[in-house]
Amino acid sequence: MKLWFYLLPGLLLAVISASAQRPPSLQSPEVNADHSITFRYYSRNAQSVLVKGEFLTSPVVMTKDTAGIWSVTVAPVKPDIYPYSFVVDQVELADPNNVYLFANERFKRSIVDVPGDQPLIHAMENVPHGKVSYRYYRSKTLDSTRTLLVYTPPGFNRTGAKKYPVLYLIHGGSDTEETWTKVGKAHFIADNLIARKLAEPMIIVMPYANVRPRPMPEFTKDMINDIIPFIESNYPVQADSRGRAIAGFSVGGGQTLNIGLTNTDKFAYIAAYAPYTATEEFQRNFFNWSPPVERVNKQLRLFTISVGTEDFLFESVKKNIALFNEKHIRVKSYIVPGGHTWMNCKQFLATTLQEIFK
Amino acid sequence: MKLWFYLLPGLLLAVISASAQRPPSLQSPEVNADHSITFRYYSRNAQSVLVKGEFLTSPVVMTKDTAGIWSVTVAPVKPDIYPYSFVVDQVELADPNNVYLFANERFKRSIVDVPGDQPLIHAMENVPHGKVSYRYYRSKTLDSTRTLLVYTPPGFNRTGAKKYPVLYLIHGGSDTEETWTKVGKAHFIADNLIARKLAEPMIIVMPYANVRPRPMPEFTKDMINDIIPFIESNYPVQADSRGRAIAGFSVGGGQTLNIGLTNTDKFAYIAAYAPYTATEEFQRNFFNWSPPVERVNKQLRLFTISVGTEDFLFESVKKNIALFNEKHIRVKSYIVPGGHTWMNCKQFLATTLQEIFK
Repeated sequence: MKLWFYLLPGLLLAVISASAQRPPSLQSPEVNADHSITFRYYSRNAQSVLVKGEFLTSPVVMTKDTAGIWSVTVAPVKPDIYPYSFVVDQVELADPNNVYLFANERFKRSIVDVPGDQPLIHAMENVPHGKVSYRYYRSKTLDSTRTLLVYTPPGFNRTGAKKYPVLYLIHGGSDTEETWTKVGKAHFIADNLIARKLAEPMIIVMPYANVRPRPMPEFTKDMINDIIPFIESNYPVQADSRGRAIAGFSVGGGQTLNIGLTNTDKFAYIAAYAPYTATEEFQRNFFNWSPPVERVNKQLRLFTISVGTEDFLFESVKKNIALFNEKHIRVKSYIVPGGHTWMNCKQFLATTLQEIFK
Repeated sequence: MKLWFYLLPGLLLAVISASAQRPPSLQSPEVNADHSITFRYYSRNAQSVLVKGEFLTSPVVMTKDTAGIWSVTVAPVKPDIYPYSFVVDQVELADPNNVYLFANERFKRSIVDVPGDQPLIHAMENVPHGKVSYRYYRSKTLDSTRTLLVYTPPGFNRTGAKKYPVLYLIHGGSDTEETWTKVGKAHFIADNLIARKLAEPMIIVMPYANVRPRPMPEFTKDMINDIIPFIESNYPVQADSRGRAIAGFSVGGGQTLNIGLTNTDKFAYIAAYAPYTATEEFQRNFFNWSPPVERVNKQLRLFTISVGTEDFLFESVKKNIALFNEKHIRVKSYIVPGGHTWMNCKQFLATTLQEIFK
C-alpha cells in the first residue's frame, strides 16, 4: 500500500501527454473587472501575432515577452459574447488556450463571453430550462441521415392536450446545426423570455442547412419534405401555418426568404436576419415574382427583415426590402447599429421570439 | 436589377473575413483509400512541425514545401476514430483545417475518423436512432446550474408502462460532458447494439464530472443527491439498483469506483475503464475497506475493470484488481491490447452495454 501516492490531476495530465513538450499554461482570454480583455498566445518563433475580434474595428498587435508569450489587453467592451481569433504570421487560428470555440466549418475562431453586470438576455439564469435534443432524421431528399437540434421549452409535455408552435431556425453560411445554441444561445434566450412570459412556449428546430455539393434549393426540399414531417410526426405540434415560423441568419436568412415566401401557406411568420440573397435560388424565386399579394399579406402574420447599418450586406438588404415593398408585400424592417455579427443575431432572435405565435 | 449578381459562397466568406489575409485552404486530414492519412499545416516561419496521434507510437516529422505547406502521409492505420494534434515549435495545437475537435478542457486535439470497409460499432448507420438531450439541472451540492446529456433510446416512450434502466457514464479527466458523444460516440454505439438486440433499450446519462475547485468527493454527492433525483423525476426509469449502472473512463473510472462501490444498494452494475485511482477519495474509501463482502457480491450483478496492456495506468489498474480480489469482491477484468485511449474506451463501452440490465 505504501506504493500508492496522491497525484494532482494536473500532474496526471502531464503524465498522459509526456511524449510532447508543453508550452506554458496560459489564461486566455482573461476578462478583467472593467470589461477589458487580456489575450495571450505562446510562440517563440512567430514574427507577428494579432488579435482580431468582433469587439474591434481592426486587428490589434500583440507583443512578445522574453519567454515567448504574446499578449495584449484591449479596451473595455460592451458585455456580450464575441467571436475572435489570433492571426499568427497571417494564419488565422482559434485561441489554443480557450476551450470555447465558434461552431463553424470554415472559420477558426474562439468565443469570449463578457458577462453583464445584470444578466444579459442570453445568460444561463436560474429559471426553468428547456432542453436541446440532438435528433437524427432520414432525409429522402438528400439520401442521408442528418442531425438537427430541437429545443423543447420548460414543462414541455409530449402527450398533453397542448400543441406547440414551432420555429425553424437556420444558421449562417459555413456554420453548423450547433451554432444557434453554442454561439447564439437560442435555448437560453428562449428560456429567459418564456420565464418572463415575453415569449410563448415553443419548439425551436435548428437543422443543418448546408447541402453542398448539392445545389442550395435541395435544402428547401429537405425542409418541406423531410424536416417538417419528421418534427410533426415526433412532436405534439400545431401543424398549420399559424403554428410555424421560420428565421435564419446570413445565408440562412436567404434560405428563410426562399423557403418561407414560397410557402406562405405553411409559414405565417418569417424573419430574415441580414439575409444573403445573391443566389440563383433567390433570383429565380423573386426577381420576376408576381405574388398573389393580398393572399400573401393575409397569410403572413409577421414578415421581418433585420440588418445592422455596418453589415457588409446592408446595401443588399436594403434592396431586398425595396424589392418586397415594390411587390407590395408587407414587410417590417429592423435597421439597427452593428455589423454582420452573432451579437446582433441574438438580439434579432430575442425580438422575433417576442413577436411570433401571438 | 442589373446590380444583383451571383456570388459563390466561398467568395462571400472571403468578403466576410476580408480584414485578415488568409492562408491557403488545405485539406487536412485526408484519409486515403488505403487508410493511410495525409496531414497538412501552413506556416512559413515555423521551425518544426510534428504530427502526434494515437495511431502513432511516436510523433512524426512533417516537411515543408516552398509554399510554406507542411505535410506528411502516415502509414495505413486500422479503421477507428483517432485523436491527434500538431506540435508546432513545441506548441501542441489542434489541426486548424479540421472542424472535428476533441471535446476537452485542456488538450488541443483534433479527431480523424477512418471508416471501416464494414461499418464500425460507432458508425452512424441507417438504424432507428435515439436522441441526445442537453439538460440543465440545479445542483444543490454545487450551488449551480449544470449541464448533462441524456441519451434516450429509439422508440423511447415517456409515458408508457415501460420503465427504463439508466447507465450513468462519466468522462475522463479534463474531458467534458460532450466527450462521450463527440469522441466516444456512445449514442451511436447504443443505437447499433439496440438495433441488433444486443443491448437493452436504456437511458444513458452523461454528466459533467469536473467539480474543481471543489474537492472530487463533491461529485459523488452531486451524483447521488442531485443528478440521480433529477433523472428519476424527469424520466420513466426503473428506480432501483437493478435499473442503475455506472461506468467511466480514467478519472471518471476512479469516480465510478468511488461512487459505485460505496453505493452498491443503488448500483447493481459497475464498470471502470482504465480507472485513475491515485486520489485521496479512493484511498480513503478503499485502502482500509472492510466491506460486507457477501452482501456486496450479492448486490453487484456485474463489476468489471477494463484496461489496455499499454495503458500508462496498467500497473495501477492491476493493483486495483488485486485490491478488490484481496477483499474478496467479485470483479471481472478485461485486459486488452492498447493504451489509455478512446479507441479502447468505445470497445469497453460496447462490451458493457451488452452485459448490463439482463
